[in-house]
Amino acid sequence: MSEKKTVSIVGGSGYAGGEFLRLALGHPLLEVKQVTSRRMVGDPVSLVHPNLRGRTNLKFVDPAGLEPCDILVLSMPHGVAAREFEKYAGLAPIILDLSADFRLKDLGLYKKYYGEDHPRPDLLNRWVYGNPELYREALKTANHIACCGCNATATLLGLYPLVKEGLLVDGPIFATVMISTSAAGAEPSLASHHPERAGSIRAYKPTGHRHTAEIRENLPGHPQVHLTAVATDRVRGILMTAQTFLRADLTEKDVWSAYRKVYGAEPFIRMVKLKKGIHRYPDPGVVEGTNYCDVGFELEEDTGRLVVISAIDNLVKGTAGHAIQSLNVRMGWPETTGLEFAGLHP
Amino acid sequence: MSEKKTVSIVGGSGYAGGEFLRLALGHPLLEVKQVTSRRMVGDPVSLVHPNLRGRTNLKFVDPAGLEPCDILVLSMPHGVAAREFEKYAGLAPIILDLSADFRLKDLGLYKKYYGEDHPRPDLLNRWVYGNPELYREALKTANHIACCGCNATATLLGLYPLVKEGLLVDGPIFATVMISTSAAGAEPSLASHHPERAGSIRAYKPTGHRHTAEIRENLPGHPQVHLTAVATDRVRGILMTAQTFLRADLTEKDVWSAYRKVYGAEPFIRMVKLKKGIHRYPDPGVVEGTNYCDVGFELEEDTGRLVVISAIDNLVKGTAGHAIQSLNVRMGWPETTGLEFAGLHP
Amino acid sequence: MSEKKTVSIVGGSGYAGGEFLRLALGHPLLEVKQVTSRRMVGDPVSLVHPNLRGRTNLKFVDPAGLEPCDILVLSMPHGVAAREFEKYAGLAPIILDLSADFRLKDLGLYKKYYGEDHPRPDLLNRWVYGNPELYREALKTANHIACCGCNATATLLGLYPLVKEGLLVDGPIFATVMISTSAAGAEPSLASHHPERAGSIRAYKPTGHRHTAEIRENLPGHPQVHLTAVATDRVRGILMTAQTFLRADLTEKDVWSAYRKVYGAEPFIRMVKLKKGIHRYPDPGVVEGTNYCDVGFELEEDTGRLVVISAIDNLVKGTAGHAIQSLNVRMGWPETTGLEFAGLHP
Amino acid sequence: MSEKKTVSIVGGSGYAGGEFLRLALGHPLLEVKQVTSRRMVGDPVSLVHPNLRGRTNLKFVDPAGLEPCDILVLSMPHGVAAREFEKYAGLAPIILDLSADFRLKDLGLYKKYYGEDHPRPDLLNRWVYGNPELYREALKTANHIACCGCNATATLLGLYPLVKEGLLVDGPIFATVMISTSAAGAEPSLASHHPERAGSIRAYKPTGHRHTAEIRENLPGHPQVHLTAVATDRVRGILMTAQTFLRADLTEKDVWSAYRKVYGAEPFIRMVKLKKGIHRYPDPGVVEGTNYCDVGFELEEDTGRLVVISAIDNLVKGTAGHAIQSLNVRMGWPETTGLEFAGLHP
Repeated sequence: MSEKKTVSIVGGSGYAGGEFLRLALGHPLLEVKQVTSRRMVGDPVSLVHPNLRGRTNLKFVDPAGLEPCDILVLSMPHGVAAREFEKYAGLAPIILDLSADFRLKDLGLYKKYYGEDHPRPDLLNRWVYGNPELYREALKTANHIACCGCNATATLLGLYPLVKEGLLVDGPIFATVMISTSAAGAEPSLASHHPERAGSIRAYKPTGHRHTAEIRENLPGHPQVHLTAVATDRVRGILMTAQTFLRADLTEKDVWSAYRKVYGAEPFIRMVKLKKGIHRYPDPGVVEGTNYCDVGFELEEDTGRLVVISAIDNLVKGTAGHAIQSLNVRMGWPETTGLEFAGLHP
Repeated sequence: MSEKKTVSIVGGSGYAGGEFLRLALGHPLLEVKQVTSRRMVGDPVSLVHPNLRGRTNLKFVDPAGLEPCDILVLSMPHGVAAREFEKYAGLAPIILDLSADFRLKDLGLYKKYYGEDHPRPDLLNRWVYGNPELYREALKTANHIACCGCNATATLLGLYPLVKEGLLVDGPIFATVMISTSAAGAEPSLASHHPERAGSIRAYKPTGHRHTAEIRENLPGHPQVHLTAVATDRVRGILMTAQTFLRADLTEKDVWSAYRKVYGAEPFIRMVKLKKGIHRYPDPGVVEGTNYCDVGFELEEDTGRLVVISAIDNLVKGTAGHAIQSLNVRMGWPETTGLEFAGLHP
Repeated sequence: MSEKKTVSIVGGSGYAGGEFLRLALGHPLLEVKQVTSRRMVGDPVSLVHPNLRGRTNLKFVDPAGLEPCDILVLSMPHGVAAREFEKYAGLAPIILDLSADFRLKDLGLYKKYYGEDHPRPDLLNRWVYGNPELYREALKTANHIACCGCNATATLLGLYPLVKEGLLVDGPIFATVMISTSAAGAEPSLASHHPERAGSIRAYKPTGHRHTAEIRENLPGHPQVHLTAVATDRVRGILMTAQTFLRADLTEKDVWSAYRKVYGAEPFIRMVKLKKGIHRYPDPGVVEGTNYCDVGFELEEDTGRLVVISAIDNLVKGTAGHAIQSLNVRMGWPETTGLEFAGLHP
Repeated sequence: MSEKKTVSIVGGSGYAGGEFLRLALGHPLLEVKQVTSRRMVGDPVSLVHPNLRGRTNLKFVDPAGLEPCDILVLSMPHGVAAREFEKYAGLAPIILDLSADFRLKDLGLYKKYYGEDHPRPDLLNRWVYGNPELYREALKTANHIACCGCNATATLLGLYPLVKEGLLVDGPIFATVMISTSAAGAEPSLASHHPERAGSIRAYKPTGHRHTAEIRENLPGHPQVHLTAVATDRVRGILMTAQTFLRADLTEKDVWSAYRKVYGAEPFIRMVKLKKGIHRYPDPGVVEGTNYCDVGFELEEDTGRLVVISAIDNLVKGTAGHAIQSLNVRMGWPETTGLEFAGLHP
């Protein structure tokens, strides 16, 4: 049995940090050392993460009091990790960043989608994109892991085998992500005020979603993927549907083959395409709390239109679970360690 | 046909003021003159009340720019109407206040439940409690109407006939109100942050709810009603259940008789107690958007326990609709004018 | 003032028939004469439509007992209206059918999407598609009105001006409809069993949705519109997003011009595209209970991708409200009669 | 390390059986041998329990094909386990029944609440009520465990220490349980049809709830507990509030002492009564998926009214988790084995 490694979390009062904390507390090879929050110094972490009552006596500490540890997880607002990187770089040999700061290599894409020049282009090359399905080999030796965006994960994992194996007609791919309210974070706002948001189906980002950049950069050949984001009133979860066309010489069997070839050994990807029952396609309700990405598709025979469907929990496979999985790869631990929860039904 | 009366709303960007505005715009005998909001001066009212798009071109004005009108509606945070009464008193011959400031006559109850002495006890006697079912006669000549609280309305209308007709055993009455998220108002807060509130069933005020005071003051004989408030994730609506004991010499028929005697001619109270179907008791989903208070009950034969059930929409019958109904009574208009919406199903 | 016309509803225990009944009861120029239900003969209509308690004393009658009336509304399962048309044809000079039986003229499209030959092609020519925005002139003299499908309405009203005015690049249009649970009707099923459906985002019809046929037939030039239907857990409402490309020589102003030109005088279409606030685009929550179709769009400048967004209440503008509007056109009544409800917020 | 024990589930297609299956699959000392379903013989269990995709290849078998095993779990409709007990009695030395058939000792209470004489009173004495907090000692040697009802569990665990320690004034205790839709089972019905149930707050059993019998029988001294059940639209979870009076000579400290004394060493009971934050009292959202029962209270100083609040997941602590916990006690395994999930937030 490996020895436990210590992990500390910078920015642990939000949803991403809290989810990493939950998973780390249940991980047999991790020991949570410190969790920071500027606003809540001295409060038990369970005050804002009530599911952790009775699970830990940890209290929030000030970031200034961070001590060296084996693994440091950064969960801060956009831009902070890049601007303050020197503060944290020396604290741990392995650093995971949950923000978007170090995900992109293409500075032009960064500027286009984030509206400014990247503050620290010199740092980008040392980071590996935290997506084990695409970058498992690189992750095995990565000391800096830029964990991927939730909508990007759902879209990439749905499309990757089809693009990689060259199954799609050239041309635009239209992806629609139906997302949930936890994605906007733990800070109250009018957009997330319950009476305004409950029951809402809100086209909150029809164009220009930042995760588009991650998707394009990480798909082979950089196809023109368009992203439309619609906010639902689920608390957790993403359903992604992508519309494109299959090459005219191919059939449904070829689609199956591509997925099997690329994902055959993946521990967290399940192909879901049933002929009966009510759960025939991926559904975020089914994967809530789990690290699964369920993937399915439907082919319209007469037109060749291919609809790809994927579902994840944005806070697990979309954020903290994917981070744990990347970390397991990095540490040489079994990849599913600490990610065993099967999800609930109903 | 009567001539239209002008009405202005002080504090029209919140949910109570917005709901009064919606009803007033659809009322054939009211003409909305001005709507105030300090923060949104110059913005169209439809910016925060998107249901009113295409229904009105009104823009928010500063309270300082209020002009005289026939009817003034005050919809301000607790305490403001009492403290600033002189600002508004001269603007209109008829004033309705949607806050709790002028509801109580008993200064002791006010202090107990609001934690301070009433700022303007001298004003209290001129106000009539805006509950037509209990105070219709007084409302006919009332120039100052203190509109009643939403939980108080649900509880009072459920219990009033039983108390008035002396059907209950002396002793405590335990009322539980299951309320909705709009009751906390339009201002974002952590408690109403969607990810925290969605799916929540939260015992937010097990004891000490302020509406207890209104309920006790307005029930004949002032029985000891205890109120426990539980927050659900409905956006609108209240379900009230009250538990008490029927006098041992009485039967279900006597309960029916009391309700019929007191409510037989009420336009907005429906007795709901069916023997079949799935809608056998009052349900806030059924009365959403309407001015109805549905009332039902169940009697446990062997113990005499009586469970009273009522349901309202907190923003309509619980606030703005009740206010319009009171105003209709005051003006001598048909009591249902502007309150005809039947509600939706499903 | 016109004289009231009598209307009877065949199949009034379901959601579509019930919604027509609700609107007809509130319509000043309609008098509901009979409502049929085979299973519920003798039961009050309010048993299954609890919002109508206190609004009507109507009881369900057997279809065999139908008497002549001015207007007959058919609300029956797919295929019944066509197969049993002779039963009803003589009962009223004006007939509205809420089913899909008489919507299509193209027998090939019917066979493709409904899987069988049309049972009564001889009847098709007498029916006018019940969409006032597209067929107002024809509806003025129509005695047989085939009311349009809910998803078709949302999609058609979003795309029609752009297609009619020739603003779009040739090529496929990808429409995604996010629909609600009432669309599946009043009959319990596993797919609509609350524990299975609540919180679900279900890709229930990625390809092959029947409303595709209506959409293609009624758009000028019959563009290749692809429809993907995703089921949410809203009870009412549709959000439609369509992705396509604007012609390279055009700008956002041209899009605005097309919508204004075609919809400038429409009483139930609101353009929604704001620069601030949280309600910047159409949202089904805002139009619930109303006959509005809110339409908005967003243009991605660098690629010309145009995302069109529309929102309706599937039971009102998508079914019964659209039917009432068509009937108002037919009768020469003001088009908004009986459809004045503004909707609720929050 | 103990050797694994085999467990089979009779009636595994429903929610209770499915939840036991999920927990058993994740239990390191259990090996699931067979799962029966009459209707689904040969179908993979993941067809109806989609969360188990990739977790098990088990297929449903016919009950007639059941083989001997170490532990048999009966999850059948009311009355079947009692009537068919001989079929199953010989298959395993340890039997757990998830139904209500063997919970009560008092035949009078059974008849009163279930409306008929108990079919097999001769069997009752061999069963131990599966509530480890109340009957841990007896469970250590129990070969027949009658798992307790979900509403009974929430109510019993909230009230037990107060009654046991004699803190309450004699007199009625009014308990209100706010329950969820999974409690009605996996079979579609009109009451659980999504459009009818969503958003509903339904007083579905104001009096006469069957779990009242279990509560009274298992509280020391059999106080007069009244139960009112209200159905919410949560899928899982129960919030219980009970209203009663604390003895006049006691204070809040005594309430704390009683809970600490009785529950101090309980692994699955958490006292929740905070002075700040939004999670001050138990909330079913926080315990979803877990075996926790969170318990809190509030005391109204001037009247002595005590409001007790508890929250559980009806399918875990209310059914299958409580069963696993009882089984762990019986087998001498650590009591939390297989029940480690912390729950999600948000």
